[in-house]
Amino acid sequence: MFNEIKTHEITVDIVILTIKDDALQALLVKRNNEPFKDKWAIPGGYVRMSENLDEAAMRVLKEKTNVDNIYLEQLYTFGDPLRHPVSRVITCAYFALIRAEDFDVVTTAELAWHKVSDLPPLAFDHKEIIQYSLKRTRERLEMCPVAYQLLNEKFTLTEMQKAYEMIMEKKLDKRNFRKKVITTDGLRELNEFSKSSSKRPARLYTFDNIKLNSKRAHFIKKETKC
Amino acid sequence: MFNEIKTHEITVDIVILTIKDDALQALLVKRNNEPFKDKWAIPGGYVRMSENLDEAAMRVLKEKTNVDNIYLEQLYTFGDPLRHPVSRVITCAYFALIRAEDFDVVTTAELAWHKVSDLPPLAFDHKEIIQYSLKRTRERLEMCPVAYQLLNEKFTLTEMQKAYEMIMEKKLDKRNFRKKVITTDGLRELNEFSKSSSKRPARLYTFDNIKLNSKRAHFIKKETKC
Repeated sequence: MFNEIKTHEITVDIVILTIKDDALQALLVKRNNEPFKDKWAIPGGYVRMSENLDEAAMRVLKEKTNVDNIYLEQLYTFGDPLRHPVSRVITCAYFALIRAEDFDVVTTAELAWHKVSDLPPLAFDHKEIIQYSLKRTRERLEMCPVAYQLLNEKFTLTEMQKAYEMIMEKKLDKRNFRKKVITTDGLRELNEFSKSSSKRPARLYTFDNIKLNSKRAHFIKKETKC
Repeated sequence: MFNEIKTHEITVDIVILTIKDDALQALLVKRNNEPFKDKWAIPGGYVRMSENLDEAAMRVLKEKTNVDNIYLEQLYTFGDPLRHPVSRVITCAYFALIRAEDFDVVTTAELAWHKVSDLPPLAFDHKEIIQYSLKRTRERLEMCPVAYQLLNEKFTLTEMQKAYEMIMEKKLDKRNFRKKVITTDGLRELNEFSKSSSKRPARLYTFDNIKLNSKRAHFIKKETKC
């Protein structure tokens, strides 16, 4: 019992979420090897002996999706002995919320965005990993404006509320939302208004914080309070 | 380059923090094996093939400290290739804030509480791991009353402020602290007062939430918003 082999295979898996076509979507790759050949999965791969976990996550993401220059956050490490059907593989999951237009994601038959509300069957425990990333994002959302990572630099409060609603998967009361959000650290009212032909112009807001996941701020590992 | 061995040794390391003698303290064990023989370390050990990471953390903590029935939270996975002087060892760190009197920690020459403000030289990257656990606790403290895990069931606002100050490592303004904290979800004013001979009685408060790390709530993995 005490002589069990102590070495394990270690992978990194990367959850990339965005808002696209009015839905929260995850970037998935189609597996071309067994196990789970031809099933969709979040991008992942083995950690090399010479790299740390952050480096492994960046490299694997680049290799699998060509997405580069992104701030990935370590999400959680999943180590159920049965999570891989053949080997003992522990995976360290990473996570980013991005604005898809900031990155050149060239989708193909093997690399595509999928609505998180309508995921195809996924390899391994990848559905659980995506669910965990959503859960953590929702928890944070109640405390800090993580959704700004998904917004344009200037946005209306309606756009902000929509982003929150998509992640929280519930409708929010407009009046309460505004009352709460208006006190958010770093939120700044602009003397500019949205130009929309159909509606009356709405005031624009911005965040004074640096955007974590935009190309404008490559690799700035900001210490957020969130 | 692509043929690097893909298996790694995996450990769990467990940061246990408490408030004791008016200071934030970490539970450390003295190593009796190389590397770092006779140096202090946070309790840790290898993950077995047949157990998941939570199980490994609970088992290792029990073996090394006899602390049992505790809700451990996964903190972060540390995987720097140079963190272990001999092997490639990735460690998944776990974390708990506890009230020491709820657990039977029998300290010895090889198992002791150490003030986090005055740690001895530690093995591996264990100082960094403790620092990370403090950083994350501080971040949370700004958002939710995580410190209640360190308080008695009934407490005065002064006691609560002291717990916050110890973790934040700074003095807080009494008036602002009270204004902010009084709106906390779940904080309930009691019709009871502290009995202290030297001072005038102070009102007691309680949290309606279940205490995560008390023996009264073994293993209740509550979904907190924190």
